[in-house]
Amino acid sequence: MSYARQMLDTYPKDFGLDAAELATAIEALYGCSQACTACADACLSETNPGDLAKCIRLDTDCADICITTGRILSRQTEYDANVTLATLEACVQLCRSCADECESHAEMGMEHCRVCAEACRRCEEACQALVDAIRSK
Amino acid sequence: MSYARQMLDTYPKDFGLDAAELATAIEALYGCSQACTACADACLSETNPGDLAKCIRLDTDCADICITTGRILSRQTEYDANVTLATLEACVQLCRSCADECESHAEMGMEHCRVCAEACRRCEEACQALVDAIRSK
Amino acid sequence: MSYARQMLDTYPKDFGLDAAELATAIEALYGCSQACTACADACLSETNPGDLAKCIRLDTDCADICITTGRILSRQTEYDANVTLATLEACVQLCRSCADECESHAEMGMEHCRVCAEACRRCEEACQALVDAIRSK
Amino acid sequence: MSYARQMLDTYPKDFGLDAAELATAIEALYGCSQACTACADACLSETNPGDLAKCIRLDTDCADICITTGRILSRQTEYDANVTLATLEACVQLCRSCADECESHAEMGMEHCRVCAEACRRCEEACQALVDAIRSK
Repeated sequence: MSYARQMLDTYPKDFGLDAAELATAIEALYGCSQACTACADACLSETNPGDLAKCIRLDTDCADICITTGRILSRQTEYDANVTLATLEACVQLCRSCADECESHAEMGMEHCRVCAEACRRCEEACQALVDAIRSK
Repeated sequence: MSYARQMLDTYPKDFGLDAAELATAIEALYGCSQACTACADACLSETNPGDLAKCIRLDTDCADICITTGRILSRQTEYDANVTLATLEACVQLCRSCADECESHAEMGMEHCRVCAEACRRCEEACQALVDAIRSK
Repeated sequence: MSYARQMLDTYPKDFGLDAAELATAIEALYGCSQACTACADACLSETNPGDLAKCIRLDTDCADICITTGRILSRQTEYDANVTLATLEACVQLCRSCADECESHAEMGMEHCRVCAEACRRCEEACQALVDAIRSK
Repeated sequence: MSYARQMLDTYPKDFGLDAAELATAIEALYGCSQACTACADACLSETNPGDLAKCIRLDTDCADICITTGRILSRQTEYDANVTLATLEACVQLCRSCADECESHAEMGMEHCRVCAEACRRCEEACQALVDAIRSK
């Protein structure tokens, strides 16, 4: 079992969201942040990084918002649905933009962009599922 | 002149937003992030930190979103208005919640919360001004 | 296969360190950062968080240095052994201090500290293994 | 007076280091982190960013370690001299490497590297002063 799930299971109080769904999102966020940091760096080592400026920009922004969202979701104390929602929605927007950009390079054979697009898409979906769960309460 | 403004003035291309307004927001964001990190820590050293759990929680979340927003605003390459707006709106929400919470403790004599509330309110206003500027284009 | 390993395998140039060892350290760092953020928050929800101030302090510091170290290890371009070593050594120090502190609470039945201590110890070992590998070159 | 200094002056307990020296270092760290993030982005918008890959790499690493060090110095609760020293020493190393690299580009007329080199050098000096102060106790 992942540390994210184990940390939720040992949290000393109740919390509003579903533990499995929350753990999935937290792991997707940290994984996506790492992949985006690595993808920006891989783009920088390609022959013409200037052609990948948009990808590098989105990767670095996405790496930053994913860690912040992952940290906010890792905290259960005094949960505030509005704060969580606003952060998740910004994160979904960035993951989608970054996945779209990386996919366009993946189609042209850039393998690190293919892996990164997968991580971003998985993260976008996990965050969107949480947004839907919070809104349906 | 601040480094934030000097960095904008030496950026090699044009960028869409007003440099003065952007520099004000960037400085407010980094300053607010620092104040929130220090306020969470100061709360932890008060006699009963459990009574300040909500403040510590909001401080740490706000410290994280402010740095991420400050980094995103510090990047001008391949500017994407939707990404910037979504991040700014999450940040405004968190700064407002954190300022409200800290103000309530400031009224009861907690001086680090008074300083932190000032930093959060100033940051909320600078980010809201940018949101309005982007939306009015 | 983890995204960390896949990103290393699709990096467009050679890099100095062993991919398996590097991927293990990167995953341990992101996992430890998440566990520490969650542990600080769990401590804050215990009955007397003031008794856990040292644990909360070390958790938050460790969460920060682990993400920074994880990002630096995720970048292969223009690798600088001195920079990597200095960062890894600071990280080993913090993981060890945090693991020691969490273990002392785990012995008294605090389950989130037990999980976090495991994550910190695993991270300390993975970073120390990289330090040893870099020094032995 | 800066928020960093005001937050130190309103901290509810005593702390080991000199407040003026500490506030100077904290402000230098946040300022350097911002300048490095902006410099990496400015390099990416130059005509041949591939020629600046080393600068972009060091800028992004330096931006990360400076924020982490700035956060650790912003916390006074349960101060641990060994943790602080190890982090400061990694940060000094990165600021020096980044300042050296940026200075070499500043000499060739790259103005954002000139500003960033200044921010890095100032930060290196402020952190080294703290290292010396801690070691002399």
